[in-house]
Amino acid sequence: MRPRPRLWLTTGEPAGIGPEIVLAWAQRFQAEADVILVGDPRLLEARAGRVGYPQPQWPTWSGAGKRESAGLYLRAVQLRAPSVPGHLDVRNAAYVVETLRVALEACLQGAGDAIVTAPVQKSVIADAGMAFTGHTEYFAAGCGGQRPVMMLTADNLRVALATTHLPLRAVPDAITGAGVEEVLRILDRDLRMRFGIARPVIHVCGLNPHAGEGGHMGREEIDVIAPAIAAARAAGINANGPFAADTELTPQRWAQADVVLAMYHDQGLTALKYAGFGHAVNITLGLPVIRTSVDHGTALDLAGTGRASHESLGAAVDAAIDMVRCTRSATMPAQRA
Amino acid sequence: MRPRPRLWLTTGEPAGIGPEIVLAWAQRFQAEADVILVGDPRLLEARAGRVGYPQPQWPTWSGAGKRESAGLYLRAVQLRAPSVPGHLDVRNAAYVVETLRVALEACLQGAGDAIVTAPVQKSVIADAGMAFTGHTEYFAAGCGGQRPVMMLTADNLRVALATTHLPLRAVPDAITGAGVEEVLRILDRDLRMRFGIARPVIHVCGLNPHAGEGGHMGREEIDVIAPAIAAARAAGINANGPFAADTELTPQRWAQADVVLAMYHDQGLTALKYAGFGHAVNITLGLPVIRTSVDHGTALDLAGTGRASHESLGAAVDAAIDMVRCTRSATMPAQRA
Repeated sequence: MRPRPRLWLTTGEPAGIGPEIVLAWAQRFQAEADVILVGDPRLLEARAGRVGYPQPQWPTWSGAGKRESAGLYLRAVQLRAPSVPGHLDVRNAAYVVETLRVALEACLQGAGDAIVTAPVQKSVIADAGMAFTGHTEYFAAGCGGQRPVMMLTADNLRVALATTHLPLRAVPDAITGAGVEEVLRILDRDLRMRFGIARPVIHVCGLNPHAGEGGHMGREEIDVIAPAIAAARAAGINANGPFAADTELTPQRWAQADVVLAMYHDQGLTALKYAGFGHAVNITLGLPVIRTSVDHGTALDLAGTGRASHESLGAAVDAAIDMVRCTRSATMPAQRA
Repeated sequence: MRPRPRLWLTTGEPAGIGPEIVLAWAQRFQAEADVILVGDPRLLEARAGRVGYPQPQWPTWSGAGKRESAGLYLRAVQLRAPSVPGHLDVRNAAYVVETLRVALEACLQGAGDAIVTAPVQKSVIADAGMAFTGHTEYFAAGCGGQRPVMMLTADNLRVALATTHLPLRAVPDAITGAGVEEVLRILDRDLRMRFGIARPVIHVCGLNPHAGEGGHMGREEIDVIAPAIAAARAAGINANGPFAADTELTPQRWAQADVVLAMYHDQGLTALKYAGFGHAVNITLGLPVIRTSVDHGTALDLAGTGRASHESLGAAVDAAIDMVRCTRSATMPAQRA
C-alpha cells in the first residue's frame, strides 16, 4: 500500500488556460499526494514566464525515484508545434491525446491511483481527424469499453447524468430501462467504494416536466424509469423517484440525497453549476480508474493572461485524493476487482 | 388614476394550503394596495380556527365602498361541498374555476389592476371534466387567446420559457422561429412596460447541451434559434445568444441579463428554483392583465397544519404591486392598449 495517493495530472490543451492554472495551483499545493504533471516542459516554462509565475523546478518522474518533498513531478510529452495562447493548432491535437494516453496507461499498470484532467478542446482534436468526443469516452474506451457515468459535485451536492452529450431530440429514446438500471448500479457501487457512503440514497428525476404529472405530460416515467427504479430497489439499491427535477434540485431536497440522477445534461447541470460554478468537479464513475476534472473549458480568451481561476482544478485534485483514500479503505474487496 | 394598486387574490384549491397561506399572509399585510380576496368566507373561517389564526374580519367588497384602512376585502364565492384539508373533492372544481373567473372579469372590466393566484390542483379540475391545463392558459383564453409567456423571478434573477408544460419529446418541434421571435417581442415590451427597464438585455439559451457546440450536438441553434435572435435584433430588441444553458444560468452571467430565455421547463426552472425556492414568483407576461403567482403547488400533505410558508405568496403580491406601479408610470401609452 502506497503511503500517499499518486495522481497523474494532464495539463490539457496547450493554447488554453490549462498550463497556467496548473502552474498557479502547483505554487499552493500542500503535498498531500504525489502528483505527476503530464505536459511539455518548455511550454510550461514559457507560460510561467508570460504570466509572471516562478519557473517550474519539478524533477522528471522516473517511476521509482526518491521521494520529492514537494510531491510534484513532471512526465514530459513533447509539443508537435509551438503553441500560442488562444490559438488552436491542429498539429498539437496528437500531443493532447498523448498526455491522456500516458496518464491512463500509468494508472492501468498500477503506477498511479487517479487521473486529474485540465480542459481540452474537443473540436481541434476532431479537426485533426481523430475520433474523440471527450475525456470520459476516451478513458472508457481505454478501459475496455465499460459504461462511464458522469457525475458533478459542488460542496456537498452531487448530480449524475443518465445521458450526457446528446442532441435534446435524441434524449427520450436514449433513456432505457436497462440503461437507467445500470447507471443506478454504478452509482450505488461507486458511492460506497469511492466515497465511503454505507448505503447511498439515490433520488431519480423524471424525464418530463413535473415528472410527467401522472402520465399527463409524457409516459417515460411510468413505462421506463419507475420500473428501472423498482428493479434497482429489488437488488437492494436505495433508489427513489422519479421526482420532478425542478423541486428535486432545490437545496433542502437535494441535501437529502447522496446523489440526484438527472436524465440529461441541462436538466442536471444548470442547478449544479449555479450552485458551484468555479469550484465544481466533474467525476467519471464506472471505470477501474478514478478520474476527476475541472468543470470548465479551455477559455481561449483568457489564456496567457494569468487571470483564470485554478479553484476548480484544486477542487478536482482534492476530490481525487479523497476518492483514492476511500477506495483504499473500502472494506468490500469483492467489489474492487 | 387610482391612488393604490388594486389586486384580486384568488385563494386556490380549498383542500390545499392556499386558504391558510392567505390567512397567514393577511395578518402581516402592510396595506400598500387594496387586495380583494376571492374565496368562501366559511372555508376561511374554518381554516383559521383549525390552524389557530385570528378569525378574518374582512369587509365584503362592494365595488365602490369606503376605503378600509387595512386594504383587505373579501369577494365571496361559495364552495359546492364542504372541504377537508388534504382531501380533493371534484365537486369543488367549479368553485376554484369560479374564483378565477371572478378575478379575471373584474380586471378586464377595469375594477382591478392585477391578479395574484394561490395554487390550484389541475388534476382535480380535469377529473371534474373541465378543460383546464393551468392558470396561465385559462387567463390567456379569457383574454382572447393571446400568447402568454411564463416567467419566473427570484430576487434579481429572471428566467422565461419558450415552451412550458410539454413532454420533453415534443419540445424540439415546438421550438419555431416565429414562436421564439414572438416571445422575444413580448419579453422586450413587457420588461419595458411592466418592469420599467429601458432597454431589456435578453440572453437566449440553446436547445441542446452546449448550445449544440457548433452543430455537433444538434442543429436547432443554427437553423431556428439564431435566425429568430437576428430577426429580433433587426427589430431593435437586445437579444443575444444562443448560449449554453449551464453556463448562462450561473450567478455572474445571469446577473448580466435582465432575463434569460430558456427553451423548455426543466432547462430554465431547475436553476431558478435552486436560487429562489420558497420565495420565487411565477409571472404571466403577454396578456393585458398582470398576473403573478406562488411558485409552489397545493402541498396537500401540509394543508391544515399551519406549517406552510407564505413567503412566496407575499413575494407574488409585492411583485404584482411593483408591476402595477411600473405599468402606470410607463411612458408608452400606445403599448398599454
